[in-house]
Amino acid sequence: MITSKNIHINLWINKDYHHMKSHITLTYEPLNLDYYVSQASDPSCGAISVFIGTTRDNFDGKRVVRLEYEAYAPMAERKINKIIEEASKLWPLHSAIVAHRLGHVPTTEASIIIVCSSSHRTESLMAVSYIIDHLKAEVPIWKKEIYEDSGAWKANKEWRHPMDIQNRTLAQNIENLESEYKDREKVDDIGPSLNR
Amino acid sequence: MITSKNIHINLWINKDYHHMKSHITLTYEPLNLDYYVSQASDPSCGAISVFIGTTRDNFDGKRVVRLEYEAYAPMAERKINKIIEEASKLWPLHSAIVAHRLGHVPTTEASIIIVCSSSHRTESLMAVSYIIDHLKAEVPIWKKEIYEDSGAWKANKEWRHPMDIQNRTLAQNIENLESEYKDREKVDDIGPSLNR
Repeated sequence: MITSKNIHINLWINKDYHHMKSHITLTYEPLNLDYYVSQASDPSCGAISVFIGTTRDNFDGKRVVRLEYEAYAPMAERKINKIIEEASKLWPLHSAIVAHRLGHVPTTEASIIIVCSSSHRTESLMAVSYIIDHLKAEVPIWKKEIYEDSGAWKANKEWRHPMDIQNRTLAQNIENLESEYKDREKVDDIGPSLNR
Repeated sequence: MITSKNIHINLWINKDYHHMKSHITLTYEPLNLDYYVSQASDPSCGAISVFIGTTRDNFDGKRVVRLEYEAYAPMAERKINKIIEEASKLWPLHSAIVAHRLGHVPTTEASIIIVCSSSHRTESLMAVSYIIDHLKAEVPIWKKEIYEDSGAWKANKEWRHPMDIQNRTLAQNIENLESEYKDREKVDDIGPSLNR
């Protein structure tokens, strides 16, 4: 059983997709924009595109009192890798960096930073849009919010999980995910992530 | 006659387009990414999208030894304003910030930073792409490069000016622009920019 307490929270992955540099970080620390941008910078690049997802004080018209992120880290890492690989096949990129913060993220601070660099602007602009859209739809990272009126945690349903994740604990969600993916996918597609 | 020596180099413009905050800076100083991002940040925003144009060490297969930007500042300001206004009509934005560096820009440093913020991600991502595309096509900012093999300044032709700007001085280009725009456009469309 993997819980939010023992996932490894700082993954640095260097992979060579068509000579592209990629990094993935999941961390409980604040995200350092300048650092990620400097990592993507290169004399061969004329363009660095960035998406920063920040904590809003409202959601669906309700005031958000507190926001936290939880991840199923091994699968999140694997899914983000897959999305970066897809983007790198669509556009020639120098770098693709995805950093996601977990735990409590105060209002206006960054929960996610995506940085892509390329020779020309279109590639990195397109890749950043592609990565954030697919990450939100496919990666098991849950946003949990406490609203002013309810005083209760609500899991955000942006991630289109086939199961109802509302009112489940992270442990229950991970358990369900593990059994689901063990059934649905071949072992070599999942790789070592689930065996950590 | 306006030359690169006497243009005002640090414009801060606050305009209320549909309650949107907009800033335009033209400066000979290095651009501060964190500062522009912090200016666009707001508790109502869930998304900050950024485009950074950086100096490459090559162009069209030739090694770039030195790169400089020159602007016809009053018209550049007016054109950028117009592009921001167009973007704000297409997408609800909280902020739109455009900062362009002039003069010598060393390799890997930012010549332009565009930052847009919005409640949801699509608006700011679309607006950043829109602004950089239109800025490159419509705003009188010239990129001049010295290539290793030639040893000569070449004006970059990315800005699709109707005239041939190659092998002309900035003064000549501005002179042509002024007479062209005086002929072509109504005075109230140009506003006070040309009379400064």
